[in-house]
Amino acid sequence: MDQFQDSKQNGKAEEMKWWGWGHQNKLFPFENRPHFWPWVKFKLGIDFDPTNVTPQFQDSWIPTCKATSQELAELNVICGNLENSISTDAKVRCQHSYGKSYPDLWRARRMNFQKAPDVVVFPKTHEQVQSLLKWAERNHWTAIPFGGGTNIVGGVENRDLLQRKCMIISLKKMNRLVQFNESSQTARMQAGMVGPEVEKALNDLGYTLGHFPDSFEFSSLGGWIVTRSAGMQSDGYGKIENLVVSLRVATAQGTFETMVVPTSSAGPDLNHMMIGSEGTLGIVTEAVMRVHKMPVRKLYLGYLVKEFSQAVGVIRECHDDQTRPTLFRVQDVHETELAFKLKTAPVGLQKWVQKVGKKLIQWRGYQTPCLVIAGFEGTPQEVGFKSKFFHAKMKKTGAFALGPSVGKTWSKDKYNVPYLRDSLMDYGVIVDVAETATTWENVVSLYESTVACMNKKFQSLGVKGYIGCHLSHSYGTGACLYFTYACLEKTKDLSQYYDLKSTITQHFVNEGATLSHHHAVGYEHKPWLKQEIGETGLEALQALKKHFDQKDFLNPGKLMSRDPHEFIRSITSPKVEGNDKASYTRLSSQKNQEIQV
Amino acid sequence: MDQFQDSKQNGKAEEMKWWGWGHQNKLFPFENRPHFWPWVKFKLGIDFDPTNVTPQFQDSWIPTCKATSQELAELNVICGNLENSISTDAKVRCQHSYGKSYPDLWRARRMNFQKAPDVVVFPKTHEQVQSLLKWAERNHWTAIPFGGGTNIVGGVENRDLLQRKCMIISLKKMNRLVQFNESSQTARMQAGMVGPEVEKALNDLGYTLGHFPDSFEFSSLGGWIVTRSAGMQSDGYGKIENLVVSLRVATAQGTFETMVVPTSSAGPDLNHMMIGSEGTLGIVTEAVMRVHKMPVRKLYLGYLVKEFSQAVGVIRECHDDQTRPTLFRVQDVHETELAFKLKTAPVGLQKWVQKVGKKLIQWRGYQTPCLVIAGFEGTPQEVGFKSKFFHAKMKKTGAFALGPSVGKTWSKDKYNVPYLRDSLMDYGVIVDVAETATTWENVVSLYESTVACMNKKFQSLGVKGYIGCHLSHSYGTGACLYFTYACLEKTKDLSQYYDLKSTITQHFVNEGATLSHHHAVGYEHKPWLKQEIGETGLEALQALKKHFDQKDFLNPGKLMSRDPHEFIRSITSPKVEGNDKASYTRLSSQKNQEIQV
Repeated sequence: MDQFQDSKQNGKAEEMKWWGWGHQNKLFPFENRPHFWPWVKFKLGIDFDPTNVTPQFQDSWIPTCKATSQELAELNVICGNLENSISTDAKVRCQHSYGKSYPDLWRARRMNFQKAPDVVVFPKTHEQVQSLLKWAERNHWTAIPFGGGTNIVGGVENRDLLQRKCMIISLKKMNRLVQFNESSQTARMQAGMVGPEVEKALNDLGYTLGHFPDSFEFSSLGGWIVTRSAGMQSDGYGKIENLVVSLRVATAQGTFETMVVPTSSAGPDLNHMMIGSEGTLGIVTEAVMRVHKMPVRKLYLGYLVKEFSQAVGVIRECHDDQTRPTLFRVQDVHETELAFKLKTAPVGLQKWVQKVGKKLIQWRGYQTPCLVIAGFEGTPQEVGFKSKFFHAKMKKTGAFALGPSVGKTWSKDKYNVPYLRDSLMDYGVIVDVAETATTWENVVSLYESTVACMNKKFQSLGVKGYIGCHLSHSYGTGACLYFTYACLEKTKDLSQYYDLKSTITQHFVNEGATLSHHHAVGYEHKPWLKQEIGETGLEALQALKKHFDQKDFLNPGKLMSRDPHEFIRSITSPKVEGNDKASYTRLSSQKNQEIQV
Repeated sequence: MDQFQDSKQNGKAEEMKWWGWGHQNKLFPFENRPHFWPWVKFKLGIDFDPTNVTPQFQDSWIPTCKATSQELAELNVICGNLENSISTDAKVRCQHSYGKSYPDLWRARRMNFQKAPDVVVFPKTHEQVQSLLKWAERNHWTAIPFGGGTNIVGGVENRDLLQRKCMIISLKKMNRLVQFNESSQTARMQAGMVGPEVEKALNDLGYTLGHFPDSFEFSSLGGWIVTRSAGMQSDGYGKIENLVVSLRVATAQGTFETMVVPTSSAGPDLNHMMIGSEGTLGIVTEAVMRVHKMPVRKLYLGYLVKEFSQAVGVIRECHDDQTRPTLFRVQDVHETELAFKLKTAPVGLQKWVQKVGKKLIQWRGYQTPCLVIAGFEGTPQEVGFKSKFFHAKMKKTGAFALGPSVGKTWSKDKYNVPYLRDSLMDYGVIVDVAETATTWENVVSLYESTVACMNKKFQSLGVKGYIGCHLSHSYGTGACLYFTYACLEKTKDLSQYYDLKSTITQHFVNEGATLSHHHAVGYEHKPWLKQEIGETGLEALQALKKHFDQKDFLNPGKLMSRDPHEFIRSITSPKVEGNDKASYTRLSSQKNQEIQV
């Protein structure tokens, strides 16, 4: 039996909470983790209890659908008159209003759904999507593609300044494996397949896509492609753009489709025109993906190192000599501390083993260690070869080998981590992540300066803050640094969140690092895109937008959108938009205050 | 000492023959290769001697430069008033009129330089290139970037239908290694560096780019990038697009520059807007490239297999289990025969060894074998691991191991092969190559159907023809097939050449393969681009062209150019363009006919 959750999938797509992360009835499994909350409370200066009352949904707070019955009838015809092809249900519309960023959940918890779409449509074929786009363009609607709805940069939110009627095109029903070609190691899949569906379909054939982002359980193939997603094992299987062989895209200019060939020199690679385009140029409906045989062997090893930089040096070397692991993570001291605080309490003999182990580790000088996880997947030969040389390198740096158990623990919890945010939000804590990529030369210095920059920010805001980081993906020329930070929210609106968000993103871009390694642009990262790609680059993207979408009806206000001031305005006038009745009061030191929704 | 020519470079850029391939005073080294010509003559039905008189250059046949002295003065100022920054010399202009395709050499040999550029400029900096573009746009000139001039699809030819004055922007003087970053494994290089310059600069630092196309000795970094080139060892080091970290491009809209980061999710990958753009959107002036440590060990192994398909199966498997070689070539029976006919005659004991070897091979049933070359480069561990498992796979298919000597022979001759064409052209032989990529499922059937298709074509033309093929690059999902074909030219113009060219390219595209894996589009492949990328794809490229180059002055008539009938016309009205005096008569069976130039 395989120890790794992602290896065998039940293939079920589930709906997420309308107000938080993940499965409807699931919260972070805090059972038997006695060290976590005391540590969090100390770290963030929390001296009150949480108010973890599940927000209650109220139909009447959702704006009325503005679609006429004639329009709805036409949309229904386009979707083949099939049952449940279109929905104007208040809860369905609310569930398709936001992604899962902190401001999304913040507003959802306050029942602020003022810009809910008018209709959610569920097409089943490429042709239907194509017709929906033509219809929307002709009828002056906006259309926003929606995959798993896990985007955290505002990618699926209605941001139309022209206040047109809005349809969400959910790809949920486009979840078929269309064709599998074992000989060519390719699978043609509909873009609406979510992680578990993709893996179930391929696993049954002995294959895997090898793409396991944190959002794996809910996010979709199409979403991965248009945001240039990276799975946790991307070092081995490739970032999503490395797995795309061919795309089929519905656009207002007609179907855009690339050839199914391994590579070509017939002009610029047109897959890359659509990969990362975030539904602003068209809607990816199908993709031919490179698949891999299910790995015969998986070996995940844990290590402790004294310095973040030690492990960084090792992985850099592994890119030189082709011994890099399939997954490589180094957690800094802060994240390592968090990981230890999240450990379940041992029982029986385990208790004694852990105690001795801890003593040994401390005796060896690892007072504040960094945790390294290296996962090897493949044939026994490949795993044997790579892990042997990797291990030798780690030992040479003086790393303390923890063996395979840490890897197992990590793997068990890896999809649970996003649930933590909801529990922290019950305390009125801002929790956010920011990730970037930079060249090896800058990795350690960027890590250090970012931690310093954010700590300074916390100080200036007068809050106790947490910031931790792990190196999550690596390349021949550099790596991705993934930061998580948290502090109590002192403002009654999102201004403090945006203050933190801009501080860290601006710092990345100033330091020559990218504004995002795998979370895309949406509207949250828009203010920095010009600094990243330059005016000439931005204008080129805008020219493409103009070509594909003359009416600016496709996911307006995102990515290369021509209103650069939009987001800035939302920072500088931090007034909460929307329903004034949404008076969910931020929790302060008053205990057990009720949530008023 | 290293046995491989490409390993240590003298770093010298040389000018090529104006009428043929390669170094000015070099021809294919036929010495001591007694089997070649008798075999060629039999194969192609040649019963006359060659007329290998070197074409003579005549200044007076080059059209007069149309630039005014005012214009020349302005261009000189832009180029910093440096010596030799601009040239209107007839021979220099002729040398920058064409690439090195068969029609290019055919016309050059006939002194047909009717569309020679008016000026060749040699800027030294990005800013100068930027200014030249602004100047050209303002003054209604066309501008064509020129790297090594080895393009074989018409990429550097003046095809302006508006008959504007034309400047060639040679990047020859932009040949500096600007910055080397060992820590990040990156090198910032000017785009005009040619292969030997790139390798010399990096080798001196213990590094290599690992990019060795057939044209390596003359082609340039910028040319590789804008044509999506593939080096012979691309399976190991990556196709050129996999090596690009960041680009700096001069465009009529200003400087286009991407961030130096390993990867990003900030919108579509803008490097890919310029990679493969063939100088139609801008001129790549600098690139930050991912470099590799010089391999400590190189092991090139030869094998014989009975069927092309056997070796194809092995390499496909190697992509599954990460044991693929750095270079992998399978030559079909025809190319293997050619390789054997090109062997130098053995002397002394070698003679006896070869004779016994040949007997043994035949006795083992390899009457018409296929030659396989597998090259492994890297650390001793990596080479050891991969070659061991590769060897086991080859043995399992019943391959006959030839050891490392074949690899050495191949490596010695690898840059000589292109010279063969000139010698064959002395006989009036059409020699051309066509390469494509397709998925594994189709590799063998495409190989077979292409050979059959071309043999049928030869038959319909009433000529004896040769067609051979090798699998030259491979990927997880498929491979590149590289065909070489030849036959006597029966027409007095290029119509027979174009007939063959269209036959094979149309066959590729009809079979779902790409029109080119690494030779780009230029104008020769333009007629098939729409079939490859579809109308929507083509229009998107045209939208980019329109955005970057509203006046269509940058390398007009290429790639996505809006006159799709241009090339078709050149096929259907096969009248030789240009100077009527260019009466270089095709050699027929009359012996020793003089070349009249």
